[in-house]
Amino acid sequence: MKAEVFLFDEVPKKDISKKVLGGKGFGLVEMTKLGLPVPAGFVITTNMCNEFFKKGKRMWPELEKSILNNVLKLERNTGKKFDDAGKPLLVSVRSGAPMSMPGMMDTVLNLGINDRIAEALSSKTGDARFAYDTYRRFIQLFGKIVMNVPGEKFDTILERYKEESGAKNDVSVSAEGWQEVVKRYKELIKKDTGKELPQEPREQLMMAIGAVFNSWWNQRAIEYRKIYNISDSLGTAVNVVMMVYGNFDDKSGTGVAFTRDPSTGEKKVYGEFLMKAQGEDVVAGIRTPEPVSRLREQVPKAYDELMSIFKTLEGHFKDMQDIEFTVESGKLYMLQTRNGKRTANAAVKIALDMAKEKLISKEEAVLRVETGQLERLLYKQIDKNAKAEPLAKGLPAAPGAAIGKIVFTVEDAQSARKKNEKIILVRPETTPEDIAGIAAADGVLTSRGGMTSHAAVVTRGMGKPCIVGAEEMKIDVRRDSLNVKGKTLKKGDMITIDGGSGLVFAGEMPLVEPKISGDVAALLEWADKFRRLQVMANADTPEMAEKARQNGAQGIGLDRTERMFNVQERLDIVRKMILAGTAEERRKYLDEIKPMQKGDFKNILKAMHGLPVTIRLLDVPLHEFLPKLDDILVKVTELRMKRKGSEELKESEKVLRRVNELREYNPMMGQRGVRLSLMYPEIYVMQVEAIMEAAAELKKDGVDVEPEIMISQVATVGEFRKAREIVEKTADRILNDYGVSISYKVGTMIETPRAALTAKTIAEYADFFSFGTNDLTQATFAFSRDDVESKLMPFYIENKLIAENPFGTLDYDGVGRLVSIATSEGKDKNKKLVVGVCGETGGDPKSIEFFNETGLDYVSCSPYRVPVARLAAAQAELKKKFAAASTV
Amino acid sequence: MKAEVFLFDEVPKKDISKKVLGGKGFGLVEMTKLGLPVPAGFVITTNMCNEFFKKGKRMWPELEKSILNNVLKLERNTGKKFDDAGKPLLVSVRSGAPMSMPGMMDTVLNLGINDRIAEALSSKTGDARFAYDTYRRFIQLFGKIVMNVPGEKFDTILERYKEESGAKNDVSVSAEGWQEVVKRYKELIKKDTGKELPQEPREQLMMAIGAVFNSWWNQRAIEYRKIYNISDSLGTAVNVVMMVYGNFDDKSGTGVAFTRDPSTGEKKVYGEFLMKAQGEDVVAGIRTPEPVSRLREQVPKAYDELMSIFKTLEGHFKDMQDIEFTVESGKLYMLQTRNGKRTANAAVKIALDMAKEKLISKEEAVLRVETGQLERLLYKQIDKNAKAEPLAKGLPAAPGAAIGKIVFTVEDAQSARKKNEKIILVRPETTPEDIAGIAAADGVLTSRGGMTSHAAVVTRGMGKPCIVGAEEMKIDVRRDSLNVKGKTLKKGDMITIDGGSGLVFAGEMPLVEPKISGDVAALLEWADKFRRLQVMANADTPEMAEKARQNGAQGIGLDRTERMFNVQERLDIVRKMILAGTAEERRKYLDEIKPMQKGDFKNILKAMHGLPVTIRLLDVPLHEFLPKLDDILVKVTELRMKRKGSEELKESEKVLRRVNELREYNPMMGQRGVRLSLMYPEIYVMQVEAIMEAAAELKKDGVDVEPEIMISQVATVGEFRKAREIVEKTADRILNDYGVSISYKVGTMIETPRAALTAKTIAEYADFFSFGTNDLTQATFAFSRDDVESKLMPFYIENKLIAENPFGTLDYDGVGRLVSIATSEGKDKNKKLVVGVCGETGGDPKSIEFFNETGLDYVSCSPYRVPVARLAAAQAELKKKFAAASTV
Repeated sequence: MKAEVFLFDEVPKKDISKKVLGGKGFGLVEMTKLGLPVPAGFVITTNMCNEFFKKGKRMWPELEKSILNNVLKLERNTGKKFDDAGKPLLVSVRSGAPMSMPGMMDTVLNLGINDRIAEALSSKTGDARFAYDTYRRFIQLFGKIVMNVPGEKFDTILERYKEESGAKNDVSVSAEGWQEVVKRYKELIKKDTGKELPQEPREQLMMAIGAVFNSWWNQRAIEYRKIYNISDSLGTAVNVVMMVYGNFDDKSGTGVAFTRDPSTGEKKVYGEFLMKAQGEDVVAGIRTPEPVSRLREQVPKAYDELMSIFKTLEGHFKDMQDIEFTVESGKLYMLQTRNGKRTANAAVKIALDMAKEKLISKEEAVLRVETGQLERLLYKQIDKNAKAEPLAKGLPAAPGAAIGKIVFTVEDAQSARKKNEKIILVRPETTPEDIAGIAAADGVLTSRGGMTSHAAVVTRGMGKPCIVGAEEMKIDVRRDSLNVKGKTLKKGDMITIDGGSGLVFAGEMPLVEPKISGDVAALLEWADKFRRLQVMANADTPEMAEKARQNGAQGIGLDRTERMFNVQERLDIVRKMILAGTAEERRKYLDEIKPMQKGDFKNILKAMHGLPVTIRLLDVPLHEFLPKLDDILVKVTELRMKRKGSEELKESEKVLRRVNELREYNPMMGQRGVRLSLMYPEIYVMQVEAIMEAAAELKKDGVDVEPEIMISQVATVGEFRKAREIVEKTADRILNDYGVSISYKVGTMIETPRAALTAKTIAEYADFFSFGTNDLTQATFAFSRDDVESKLMPFYIENKLIAENPFGTLDYDGVGRLVSIATSEGKDKNKKLVVGVCGETGGDPKSIEFFNETGLDYVSCSPYRVPVARLAAAQAELKKKFAAASTV
Repeated sequence: MKAEVFLFDEVPKKDISKKVLGGKGFGLVEMTKLGLPVPAGFVITTNMCNEFFKKGKRMWPELEKSILNNVLKLERNTGKKFDDAGKPLLVSVRSGAPMSMPGMMDTVLNLGINDRIAEALSSKTGDARFAYDTYRRFIQLFGKIVMNVPGEKFDTILERYKEESGAKNDVSVSAEGWQEVVKRYKELIKKDTGKELPQEPREQLMMAIGAVFNSWWNQRAIEYRKIYNISDSLGTAVNVVMMVYGNFDDKSGTGVAFTRDPSTGEKKVYGEFLMKAQGEDVVAGIRTPEPVSRLREQVPKAYDELMSIFKTLEGHFKDMQDIEFTVESGKLYMLQTRNGKRTANAAVKIALDMAKEKLISKEEAVLRVETGQLERLLYKQIDKNAKAEPLAKGLPAAPGAAIGKIVFTVEDAQSARKKNEKIILVRPETTPEDIAGIAAADGVLTSRGGMTSHAAVVTRGMGKPCIVGAEEMKIDVRRDSLNVKGKTLKKGDMITIDGGSGLVFAGEMPLVEPKISGDVAALLEWADKFRRLQVMANADTPEMAEKARQNGAQGIGLDRTERMFNVQERLDIVRKMILAGTAEERRKYLDEIKPMQKGDFKNILKAMHGLPVTIRLLDVPLHEFLPKLDDILVKVTELRMKRKGSEELKESEKVLRRVNELREYNPMMGQRGVRLSLMYPEIYVMQVEAIMEAAAELKKDGVDVEPEIMISQVATVGEFRKAREIVEKTADRILNDYGVSISYKVGTMIETPRAALTAKTIAEYADFFSFGTNDLTQATFAFSRDDVESKLMPFYIENKLIAENPFGTLDYDGVGRLVSIATSEGKDKNKKLVVGVCGETGGDPKSIEFFNETGLDYVSCSPYRVPVARLAAAQAELKKKFAAASTV
């Protein structure tokens, strides 16, 4: 393979992509092309990284030659030279993967320095302190990253030296101090590795490049890729860039900034900087930085240039940029640019604003907001009316409210997650090592760090509420406790955090639903124009129906009627019905239930007037309405032991008998849905009477009703035809009695594999199909949710026995194949067939993309997810359109 | 539609088929073509019948015209005329469907007779008794079938007249008597229908043809078609045939005969006849007939001609024929010929003999024996060593032994069947009305009737053991009891019948397996040459393996290992293993079980030396080995109430806790098979160690072993790979320890729909697939066998919600589609993949035909079904071959 090493201004056009250059390299190359002040440097492509791994993690002559050749060019362009006491060239060696993996891989700074150059720098600049501070920084990073000396050992040496010398912090360490530290660092390396710190810059460079390649496989990078589903095969690029010094003099500094406010989306400068500091000092959150606006006072020329660069970058990348810069003796250098992570609110506002600014189209704006971000906007918030004294206040790093038990360690976070507990990870600050703990937590709270600290960046990316820098809190990780305002909270105590306001509360605060309005409403209106899929809601009550309407549902795709039997005051009658011996007796009790259900149906149909309401007739097996076997068995056993209360015993024995009669070995595959109706048709008859009477009476009152009746669990066309016959006969009788005409539909869920496989036949008799992906997934995998999902799924995902939880995101290969067969063959047979989905995947954006692609007509999901589904449906259709356009 | 009415010798060649002419018409036309003595007549095709239904059960002018035209031809050919006192033409109007439905539809005899003709016949023949007996027979049938007067009313008149006149039986009724009966019959018709008996022969004819058409939809015909899966859309043909009279004089008679013995298959004349009788007298079993050989003495010329005709017919139809004949005044007439029903023994012998006689090829011989018949030969027989006094002896009408509770009515038979009880239907005689009861029974026993009586014919067809004419038994249906030799047996008492010997025993007799030898062995050897599918057996014990080998199995396709955990003496250790808290502790108990399982494996592998043995690793969930929840819950509750036995209570509570931990809502879709191994890999490890140690030790002793290890419940390729890794690592370690090399395979069951849908991926890593159609069917339908099959399947089949029980015969449309996908995609990906089936359908002939067609490599079934599977596999391949040849 030809060696791919390119100066920033010499990259072949075909290679200018994030995939080849990595995100960082791509940004640097693009900025160079735009004529922005980027320090000179070159990039080694991701292909080289993968080749490196293929060769057993070894450099090879051709690559080394090419690197050295580029070093020569760099020397020529900068006028500096490696190991040249006069004009020494120092470089940074930075990782940069195609997908952003902030802080996950390694970077070596100040490479090229050695004893001789440190000395020369010292005498040339007259600043020995700067020279040796730079040298010790190099040794520290190089020693840890390239020579594998544990980082803490360097920290210990430095801490001990500061104690000995009475230095309060790094800034107060003297030039001699740094010289001493350098000496001790070198001794450490010698002792720990048996090798000397290499003095030859080219040797340093080759070693550092190899180490950066290798950092692709370090533990936290692997972990991060697992969490974010990033392919292991991408590899990282390496950027070798001339050093510029934010710690050089009083006109020097370094900072990070966003072109807009990543928290609110406002179009205003946003960022932080530290004077006299190198990059990692800002990000690590060790010193508290100043807002970037104050750079105007300190280095006005650099500030103005930065502002102008912001504009150029947004114009070029058509998105908000997240940049790193350094000012060296008053001169601005751009060290990085990338599309910035942002809060959900900001994402929506930026997308809308940019469309209004004509930077992007409305379609692009709709594509720009991630469904996950929108979802976060719909997260519950702490009720503003709730009165409570906050425990502490920190920086609002990632919005949303979260309630959970306090945990202090990654291990505790992970084990609590396995028990499905809600948890808040509380740490002094977070580091890349904490990534698994953050992933496991519902929210994160730290006592240190700023808005761009590790915890803040990572949680924003994951969409988890986060508060950073709540400095009042004294956290003692070893004791699993935190102190604040004289109170002590222990591991396991409940707290509530509001990442939008930065407020921390003890205990559980009341949460409220946010309303959809303003920017979000506007974005969703755009989305509605672009989508093909209808979005319906699953709603069983008038309240849910109301919520669904508010959130833009175009009807109800699933109204489960179980609740209409299950509510306390009806359960007694339902049980009598089940205990009855004959159909006549059952009918008597059903007649008592009917008026109640009729009322329920009336309320829902009224709430959804003008829109279709899909009502699923009773689906669950009858034993679900009886007492639990264990309870009644214990009761009967106790009564028998007592040898008294014979009336109660007789009654309980009767119930036990019936519970045993109705007991099923595998209720999920038992007498449910349509099977129930075949044995007890009177139940369907009662329900259809209640529905059609409700509809007829509303219709007479001028309400526009569109009832659709849905049969569940169908496996054979015969079942469906039989059920449809019951439904039609009953419905037509009622409509005839009322003398009104209402057009209603009768359809079926497709939730058994066989229904999908024989959809062609069923489609002849059905008005609509609705995929019940929960049950369909269960049967297709033969995975009982109750048994397998809860107990085995974490293990399955952990061990990659399955890509994703198929109950959350449709399993394309298995279940999806059935969905696809049923949709195409069903529609082929019955041109009027309407096809939708009402399982949990109906509200999942990835699944929605599949459903859109597969040609479904609608998705139905929880009322709360309706806005997400609207956006996802639009994005699915737009992606399809753009993909089609790009292949023309 | 053009009217299709044809004289027997004028049928267009293209219409000469059973489908168009019905079975009876086809036989008559073929015999006419062969120049055999068939009475003149014409046939109205089945197409006319269906057209008749399409036209709302009405005749139409064109058809009527064509019928009348054929009557004219008939008159010309016979020299007789309708309503001609000199030479009156009388005809029979006979139904005849494409598929044999003996006695299910209606026939009118002696049509054309009326007052005038009866009188004329009487004076012309000088036999008034014959004339009026003939007339009353006509009125009786015509009144019942065409004019819908209940048959019993005619019977009552006749019985009453016989009482009045002192006539013992029909033969002793005088000419005047029949005249009186005719008078009373005509009065009955007038009274019951308000109409006169039609006197015009053409009017009689049209009415009778319509009635015969309509009899396609009578209750028992519908029932019969349901039982035999005959399509409702076939319709019946109608044959109008000149009457000949078996009751004409002393040289007249009528009989039925087979060209070979339908019970043994011997090549000898077999049949029965009655002198001076019409056809229905023989079949109804009312008078006991004489063997056909005795016709030689009574009408030698007719007998000789009959024998010669037998030869002609077999030569023509290449099969044993079942014929009806009548001798009128010494002249033989052939009234019917069809392929004869036969016992299983006979079927095998006839097929072999005919092949040896070169009447048919070996391939045809193999196709000639129905798998159902072979199956019957494998039925258990009463142990010949068992000593018991028979209760009664009757005619051995259909072979095989059956044990069951006595029932006397169709209703009782049906309700007992629903409860899955074994039953013997006991009746004085059976009529077509009893068909549903016969279908429900395990065997039939009658006190009247001969070898060709209704019960005998029907049970032979169904393959149910039957004894007829056990005349010692006095059956009192109204009292639900029977008396024999002074003993009284009641409904519900157990009896054993041996349809091979005709012996009836009280109580349950010991039964034995028949051996496969002689003709059956010879036929199966031929079959083995023609089949492509391998036939393996499901066997869990050395005894079953032995049986499988005897029956010709080519290996073991499924050795379930559950039993190796479940036997009493191991269960205690297994429970300790399950109650253990750690993998180490579990391993300790598993080590105790290992030597026992190793012994099991050794015995099976040894028994199957030289043949593959597919061993399925533990499949069932662990809770199956623990006490039942109900039992332990009651025990704990009782101990708690007693407030003592605290040690026992503690122990029981521990067990209850673990039972509850392991409890599953839907165990069928729970922690089974491969899922179990992921949580408890040590179980697989132990099993694989036991298998490979057994194999290695046998190998060292020179035994040729071919272990194949099978993983169950796989839904994702990841699961299989993980399990395969455990198996291979363990197996290779053991083989290494023993220093032997054994090539073993690792494969998977395909029993979740997802495994089938993603078979392509799984095939990359599997050596073989084995469809577990039981579980696959459960999941595909979402039908739990335990809950749905037992409770709902009869209702489903009754109501045609499903064609057949999919657990017995593969559901082609749903499950079959998955089988087909997995087979073709799996083999496409992995050319070496071996594909088989080990579910219950693996032994079902219909399913085997599907599996052969679909390209599977083997089927595996119960050792007892192996011979059936061998035959079915051969037939499947031969049918395919012949079908392919016929389309060339």
